[in-house]
Amino acid sequence: MSVGRTGFVVTDIERADAATIDALGVHGVATVHEAMGRRGLVGAALRPLQDGARIAGSAVTVLNWPGDNLMIHAAVEQCRAGDILVVTTTSPSLDGSFGELFATALQQRGVLGLVTTGGVRDVVDLRAMGFHVWSAAVNAQGTVKATAGSVNVPITVGDTVVCAGDIIVADDDGVVCVPRAEASAVLLASDARVAKEAGSRAAYQAGDLSLDRNNLRPLLADLGVTYVTAQDFEAEHGRG
Amino acid sequence: MSVGRTGFVVTDIERADAATIDALGVHGVATVHEAMGRRGLVGAALRPLQDGARIAGSAVTVLNWPGDNLMIHAAVEQCRAGDILVVTTTSPSLDGSFGELFATALQQRGVLGLVTTGGVRDVVDLRAMGFHVWSAAVNAQGTVKATAGSVNVPITVGDTVVCAGDIIVADDDGVVCVPRAEASAVLLASDARVAKEAGSRAAYQAGDLSLDRNNLRPLLADLGVTYVTAQDFEAEHGRG
Amino acid sequence: MSVGRTGFVVTDIERADAATIDALGVHGVATVHEAMGRRGLVGAALRPLQDGARIAGSAVTVLNWPGDNLMIHAAVEQCRAGDILVVTTTSPSLDGSFGELFATALQQRGVLGLVTTGGVRDVVDLRAMGFHVWSAAVNAQGTVKATAGSVNVPITVGDTVVCAGDIIVADDDGVVCVPRAEASAVLLASDARVAKEAGSRAAYQAGDLSLDRNNLRPLLADLGVTYVTAQDFEAEHGRG
Amino acid sequence: MSVGRTGFVVTDIERADAATIDALGVHGVATVHEAMGRRGLVGAALRPLQDGARIAGSAVTVLNWPGDNLMIHAAVEQCRAGDILVVTTTSPSLDGSFGELFATALQQRGVLGLVTTGGVRDVVDLRAMGFHVWSAAVNAQGTVKATAGSVNVPITVGDTVVCAGDIIVADDDGVVCVPRAEASAVLLASDARVAKEAGSRAAYQAGDLSLDRNNLRPLLADLGVTYVTAQDFEAEHGRG
Amino acid sequence: MSVGRTGFVVTDIERADAATIDALGVHGVATVHEAMGRRGLVGAALRPLQDGARIAGSAVTVLNWPGDNLMIHAAVEQCRAGDILVVTTTSPSLDGSFGELFATALQQRGVLGLVTTGGVRDVVDLRAMGFHVWSAAVNAQGTVKATAGSVNVPITVGDTVVCAGDIIVADDDGVVCVPRAEASAVLLASDARVAKEAGSRAAYQAGDLSLDRNNLRPLLADLGVTYVTAQDFEAEHGRG
Amino acid sequence: MSVGRTGFVVTDIERADAATIDALGVHGVATVHEAMGRRGLVGAALRPLQDGARIAGSAVTVLNWPGDNLMIHAAVEQCRAGDILVVTTTSPSLDGSFGELFATALQQRGVLGLVTTGGVRDVVDLRAMGFHVWSAAVNAQGTVKATAGSVNVPITVGDTVVCAGDIIVADDDGVVCVPRAEASAVLLASDARVAKEAGSRAAYQAGDLSLDRNNLRPLLADLGVTYVTAQDFEAEHGRG
Repeated sequence: MSVGRTGFVVTDIERADAATIDALGVHGVATVHEAMGRRGLVGAALRPLQDGARIAGSAVTVLNWPGDNLMIHAAVEQCRAGDILVVTTTSPSLDGSFGELFATALQQRGVLGLVTTGGVRDVVDLRAMGFHVWSAAVNAQGTVKATAGSVNVPITVGDTVVCAGDIIVADDDGVVCVPRAEASAVLLASDARVAKEAGSRAAYQAGDLSLDRNNLRPLLADLGVTYVTAQDFEAEHGRG
Repeated sequence: MSVGRTGFVVTDIERADAATIDALGVHGVATVHEAMGRRGLVGAALRPLQDGARIAGSAVTVLNWPGDNLMIHAAVEQCRAGDILVVTTTSPSLDGSFGELFATALQQRGVLGLVTTGGVRDVVDLRAMGFHVWSAAVNAQGTVKATAGSVNVPITVGDTVVCAGDIIVADDDGVVCVPRAEASAVLLASDARVAKEAGSRAAYQAGDLSLDRNNLRPLLADLGVTYVTAQDFEAEHGRG
Repeated sequence: MSVGRTGFVVTDIERADAATIDALGVHGVATVHEAMGRRGLVGAALRPLQDGARIAGSAVTVLNWPGDNLMIHAAVEQCRAGDILVVTTTSPSLDGSFGELFATALQQRGVLGLVTTGGVRDVVDLRAMGFHVWSAAVNAQGTVKATAGSVNVPITVGDTVVCAGDIIVADDDGVVCVPRAEASAVLLASDARVAKEAGSRAAYQAGDLSLDRNNLRPLLADLGVTYVTAQDFEAEHGRG
Repeated sequence: MSVGRTGFVVTDIERADAATIDALGVHGVATVHEAMGRRGLVGAALRPLQDGARIAGSAVTVLNWPGDNLMIHAAVEQCRAGDILVVTTTSPSLDGSFGELFATALQQRGVLGLVTTGGVRDVVDLRAMGFHVWSAAVNAQGTVKATAGSVNVPITVGDTVVCAGDIIVADDDGVVCVPRAEASAVLLASDARVAKEAGSRAAYQAGDLSLDRNNLRPLLADLGVTYVTAQDFEAEHGRG
Repeated sequence: MSVGRTGFVVTDIERADAATIDALGVHGVATVHEAMGRRGLVGAALRPLQDGARIAGSAVTVLNWPGDNLMIHAAVEQCRAGDILVVTTTSPSLDGSFGELFATALQQRGVLGLVTTGGVRDVVDLRAMGFHVWSAAVNAQGTVKATAGSVNVPITVGDTVVCAGDIIVADDDGVVCVPRAEASAVLLASDARVAKEAGSRAAYQAGDLSLDRNNLRPLLADLGVTYVTAQDFEAEHGRG
Repeated sequence: MSVGRTGFVVTDIERADAATIDALGVHGVATVHEAMGRRGLVGAALRPLQDGARIAGSAVTVLNWPGDNLMIHAAVEQCRAGDILVVTTTSPSLDGSFGELFATALQQRGVLGLVTTGGVRDVVDLRAMGFHVWSAAVNAQGTVKATAGSVNVPITVGDTVVCAGDIIVADDDGVVCVPRAEASAVLLASDARVAKEAGSRAAYQAGDLSLDRNNLRPLLADLGVTYVTAQDFEAEHGRG
């Protein structure tokens, strides 16, 4: 397992086909995460810098030293249209390692956005440019260019491993990573989930209960859950 | 004290009268909290998913196991128009136990919104629907339906106990819970506070100082607070 | 060093000249922070209550006891047009020690905004008034007026010392404090930085790489960073 | 619900009988918590100041303002032999509101120890005196005596409500609160649990598996858990 | 990448040879981490339950649902002498999913200890048994056995991926994971590092400076670091 | 204000006289902090690595870049017998920038201990050597030597500014910094406080109440605190 290995810029990475990436992007984070068997989220600590954006693309990964953004400089050259930059540090750091100049360079190459466990700055500019960002912080704290990290090695983001070329889907619900080898299977499962949810939505709009639709009453009974009136509950257990 | 007791769905709860609930809602969270003697807040960790919303309603409480949303399914049936769902877990969990399908079912019944110590997902949809949410996280992490919790038992949300039928007021300042038995008294105290603040506001707009209006100069003197020029302070204590 | 000394209201503080303050405000937080040698930020925990605001002014400092806002009452009298109130507590506290009535009184005197390590409330009103706030929390929790703190003594905000009369610049990237004695030098350095960045921006828009523009390839080589194809990397180190 | 009401010193509280309290103390925190249906813990943030202590006693509750310990002074008088002081604040505060002088006064009255959501100081002395403490912090930060709180009103500690006279059990695993009215039932359930665990312990020492003893293999199968060799798993899903 | 896949118990895992494991254990966490190129730590949040213990063994991994310990029951059967149980949850949870009964069963099979991102209880017993634990919390909070997770699939612990059969070294400095395929190389590098450090230690004991031994004076000069007397510094930059 | 300025090694710092330092050390952290008017603490996040140690000495300050310990190498040369190293970083970092080799070099020069906002490693060795440490973490994470910081410039540690030559007192209650210019005054105030506390201790051992000794009953009455029996309180406000 090569997670977190410093000292490499990995080139010529493989990417998934664009149609699959786009189709996953249509489904969005919550659906794709469920379709993967509830895996792949980068965690609730990374929040969007903007409202209402949804992007899907191929991961170009960056591993920086804390307080240092040297490897983002190296990563730009490895990016191409449709990519999403995914940045982390070898130990926790919220420094503002990314700002408007990087976004300018990346947007010029067709990169869709940034996912980072660190901080970003120039956020007014980033929003105005339409360069979409999911980050753990907004932080003006500047960084140096002094220590080796890596580009396109496997990294961990939250509890998820992101490899170069994996599919990143990001929207207001968060960020999910689909391993490249699983992309087609996850897309099929996402399609199925969406179809099923459409049925549920119509039923609930008509007043059906999920308790019945999912046949949960027997489960509640098996678990020993008791229905009791407020009056009887208070008589037995006292007032709250 | 029955706080946190699992295994019950309590039915037929009592609610406060609608006029009192609505009047508390007009006052908003900060005023009601002050009028209660600075009690009742659920804590600064729960934030609104939207800007500018203010709701007031009757609490239907849900106690889930972490990573599980079974009892929300059971709670829908107990809700009626004007209710607000208040959800917590038996131990801390930010999983995304609530999303658009639940909101659809609840909105169909006239439920006003959700207050949760956990996470929510499908936030674009929730905002579009106008289903108002106060939560500790946005998180796509999915949950199971496997373990017993409770509906409408007393729960703690932050340092506040919420009983079924208590009045919940929520706006951009946070969420406050008014025990049902105190609703009328709190409404009176809120009215009084608003009247007093209107006088202060006019005075401050005219240039009055709260130092004088609240007669705080004698208190400062009693506490030994000394007025000193910057020049004298630096001579005595050195530069900052 | 008089940081955090309670029991004083320091009057007749010196302020920087308005032209310098305004010019620093034009540059914004990230530029000023870099121009100071990457110092002066109050930390990523303080976030703006509004989007897109940028203010610059002279610090009037307040040191409160936790759960107490007595010294804000005393501070109002020390404020004049162009000031920014900077509030902290003697030990950590997120209580809502500031709301719309204070903002009304301060706005009447021409104060531009608030920076606080605590919480604020009445946020709908604050946004509507255009009174700009950077705070660590939104929190309706009320406070008392009972214990001595200070006005205009040096305080620490994050890892930064703020003295009365220092220049505060605040925008969506955060808050930076420029010591009054450094204001002119920092302004010059900020001008230089902006000029340099304009060149970089144009170059990146034309497709140049920062790797080349900053001459970073020799550094990467010195640090032992190796370029390797994905195929070769996987053969050597295994799959991620 | 009177949780968190300030301005009262409640006297003449009822306590559980000593034999029940002592018997619960023998069982310890984990057993009592399980016997209550997994309720009553004050949360993992409160840690013992010492190793190996276990105490059980009657709660005398204190609600302080943050940065203030006035009500601990008032509480001492309400304590008698066998009591445990349980202290919290109206909003979060880790200040060191308790030290050796309070411990001296309490020990003189036979109080067994302290549970606090705040900080303590003089910890060398506290350990030397054998006055047992569970707290959220060690913190030398001093407090004032200026603002009204309460003694012996219901308070929340973590997600648990503690009423005056409830039984507190504290050991290296944490702190649990047993409502006075439930004490006898919880003791019976604790006895039963201990007996059952003794059987399990002997079985495991003899090499039995909890998988068999708890009949969990059918549950795993029902849940769709698949047994697969490492070789087959890697062939199907790739290397980690 | 199969990280975090639920629904599997992987059997017949491969382990490193015992001599290599033991030799890595002699070196300890800090040395092994450095020898791996500063990788492999599970993060500073996991702390030892005891002082002075150092163990090294083969990882048996467990992935639980939050609030659930079902898969630890399944994992016991997969353990053999010399193993270390490594437990995490699909989303963050500090519940006390592990206690003395599990330790009894594992110790009977020769398992050396536990590393968990969750909580443990019965800590007095665990210490008395000499069953060594590194955990994120001590927490009496009980768990259920209701939801599928996995045994021996790759998991993430902090920013590190742990695969079944990887070598875990744990001591008072923390926990490090050595991928099985790297074990021999890491051992060699650890040996070299220890030898080098012995020379440094002797030199420092004799009064040598690391500034000279590592030839850092030219680097300081290159970085523009200036030596200045306190008197001159204060004259130039003012007092602190 | 020169807080946090990088790029300097300040030499020839002044220190307080040894007798004053030693006398402050006898008083300990809580007493000195109170005697300073409740200032000077570095915050509850820094904890001792050992139990029962108390040291007092002159601060040699170090400002490192995150993930980097270059300036500790430069600081060793500036240390002499009786000093205490005080280390922080330009942005938050818990990396293990300090271990046994540094302690060996410092102990050879008579340095008493370390206070750091970062992490330490080799903790078994540090304890065995009797080199006392107060740190924010134990963390094996290694650091580089690549980026300029400073030695002996003013730094902030928590909310306290530490200047080179200030007096540091550290014990189990935490760490306090006494500005050099205040040392004599703080010592006098500490003596007075200890004398007063001795009287209180004797009184409490004899059964006196602090409520009477501090004449707090009138204050409680002024604040409107009401004494009420449990029976009457419950009748008025309901059960908890």
